Amino acid sequence: MPTADAKIVVLTAPGEGLPEGMEALKKEAEVHLAEDGSTLRNAIPGAAVLCVTDFRTDALSEAWAAADNLQWIHATSAGVDALLIPPVRESDIPVTNARGVFDLCIAEYVLGQVISFCKDFAGNLRLQQAQQWVHRETEPVAGRTVLVVGAGSIGRQIGRLCKAVGMAVDGVGRRARSGDDEFGAIYAQADLLSILPDYDFVVIAAPLTPQTEGLFGQAEFKAMHPSARLINIGRGPIVQTTALVAALENGEIDGAALDVFEQEPLPADHPLWGFENVHISAHMAGDFFGWRKALSEQFIENFHRWQAGDPLQNVVDKAQGFIGTN
Amino acid sequence: MPTADAKIVVLTAPGEGLPEGMEALKKEAEVHLAEDGSTLRNAIPGAAVLCVTDFRTDALSEAWAAADNLQWIHATSAGVDALLIPPVRESDIPVTNARGVFDLCIAEYVLGQVISFCKDFAGNLRLQQAQQWVHRETEPVAGRTVLVVGAGSIGRQIGRLCKAVGMAVDGVGRRARSGDDEFGAIYAQADLLSILPDYDFVVIAAPLTPQTEGLFGQAEFKAMHPSARLINIGRGPIVQTTALVAALENGEIDGAALDVFEQEPLPADHPLWGFENVHISAHMAGDFFGWRKALSEQFIENFHRWQAGDPLQNVVDKAQGFIGTN
Repeated sequence: MPTADAKIVVLTAPGEGLPEGMEALKKEAEVHLAEDGSTLRNAIPGAAVLCVTDFRTDALSEAWAAADNLQWIHATSAGVDALLIPPVRESDIPVTNARGVFDLCIAEYVLGQVISFCKDFAGNLRLQQAQQWVHRETEPVAGRTVLVVGAGSIGRQIGRLCKAVGMAVDGVGRRARSGDDEFGAIYAQADLLSILPDYDFVVIAAPLTPQTEGLFGQAEFKAMHPSARLINIGRGPIVQTTALVAALENGEIDGAALDVFEQEPLPADHPLWGFENVHISAHMAGDFFGWRKALSEQFIENFHRWQAGDPLQNVVDKAQGFIGTN
Repeated sequence: MPTADAKIVVLTAPGEGLPEGMEALKKEAEVHLAEDGSTLRNAIPGAAVLCVTDFRTDALSEAWAAADNLQWIHATSAGVDALLIPPVRESDIPVTNARGVFDLCIAEYVLGQVISFCKDFAGNLRLQQAQQWVHRETEPVAGRTVLVVGAGSIGRQIGRLCKAVGMAVDGVGRRARSGDDEFGAIYAQADLLSILPDYDFVVIAAPLTPQTEGLFGQAEFKAMHPSARLINIGRGPIVQTTALVAALENGEIDGAALDVFEQEPLPADHPLWGFENVHISAHMAGDFFGWRKALSEQFIENFHRWQAGDPLQNVVDKAQGFIGTN
């Protein structure tokens, strides 16, 4: 039952402190901070609400036995994979996520990567560093084909922007369907291998679930067109990194823009850093100036709904691992 | 008068040879190649048509006195500044240009530069070269403001793409007007200084004319917002390079993407190469794979109109220096 002095635990990455915008909550709730398994285990007894801002957290397992009053878990991320440990899945506790907050900026990042590949902006920068003037021909963007794997709110926004600049956009969802607003067609994940050869760009915008883990491996890269590029803004483990490195070395695909990795931070000696046709960013595609505050505001708004006994927004289907819209 | 065996001179940059797609003309006309003032002077007597593929040419003055039969000059570029020497301006000879061919790719380049600035793609690449994982926050694109200086076909296509991703786009044309499809408002060039402070991005898409030469100098850069970026895909001399370098050194603007320069190629020791917030490309924004063939086809189509006595397409207003649509 919601109470006026509800206890909220905010679980952050170590050393981060209370996120911007969460201070306001202290007026209406008892707010505790935790940053790893042991501090979470100490803080969680009596807590009704757990807000997880560290999307890589492994603290829940250690603290779970002490969660004696937990009624709601919120993640300030789109992906909830780290949260969905078996006892959370099996419990009746609702899990909500940050659906919507990152969509537009991630879609802008993806479109920017598409254009950067077509116009060889990375090549421009390397030539600039060498102070060399080298005229080249580049690729049009309009008319190119994009396959967005993951037809949730982020994938749909990516589809919308790519379509707005004249690209032909299809999607991959749980089941095939047509007549979609953003996507020309939506294919079922089971058909991935047969449709991959047709696309200039393949964008991974799926959540990490048992169904998507390792989805892109040797066979998928071989199926892609040799001139195609992969863009991953979903989760690192959806791609088999070793197979990706091999595909890049063998020229089976023509490049990759990667914002997420199996191991984050990407180790300093990892071969992916060294490819000229790989664009690397530090899991930041959606993190616009003010994102932490926006995430806090979204959580507080949902907290007010919870206090009032109203239905929570953005409730994750724990069996699927994401909000079930597709 | 058009004749079946019309003599056409194609003036290219030295050593380029006959552009792809022009061979087809040899079946229906006498095609001569020239690549500088002296070869043009030898080739031009008797020629009815001059097709100039070198947008930097200075050959016309030297050869002009020998042009005894010239009836039409075509430029395979959007800008015709190098062609419009006084005797061409004062003659009755129509000048046509390559309107339309480059529009979409240039607009894609501009949108890509906008997104690259917002998402700090250049910073990503430098960190990648150093094998460093550094998370940063970046800027949204939607909601940012763009001023497109030059409301011709290239400027309008830039406006269309920027608007499609949610930016607020205004234009600068010869005269102020509202109710435009691509632009929120179109301001007169005379009002430039007063409106410049309001924009996150200022894009130069104007032709080089006596009215635009040196248009961006010290006062204009001081008027721009310190967080604003300049993008020039028009012509180099529209910007006073010394003033631009000073503005970048003094932090009066936050960056520039430059595809065109007062001196091309940009000299190897030029200070512009060295700014981390300047993106340099080698006058190639519109040059997609197949551009030369597309330009040849556009010229040949116009040649057929000329042969048939039909009105030529894309006739430049020689007094203005561009096609008079705005």
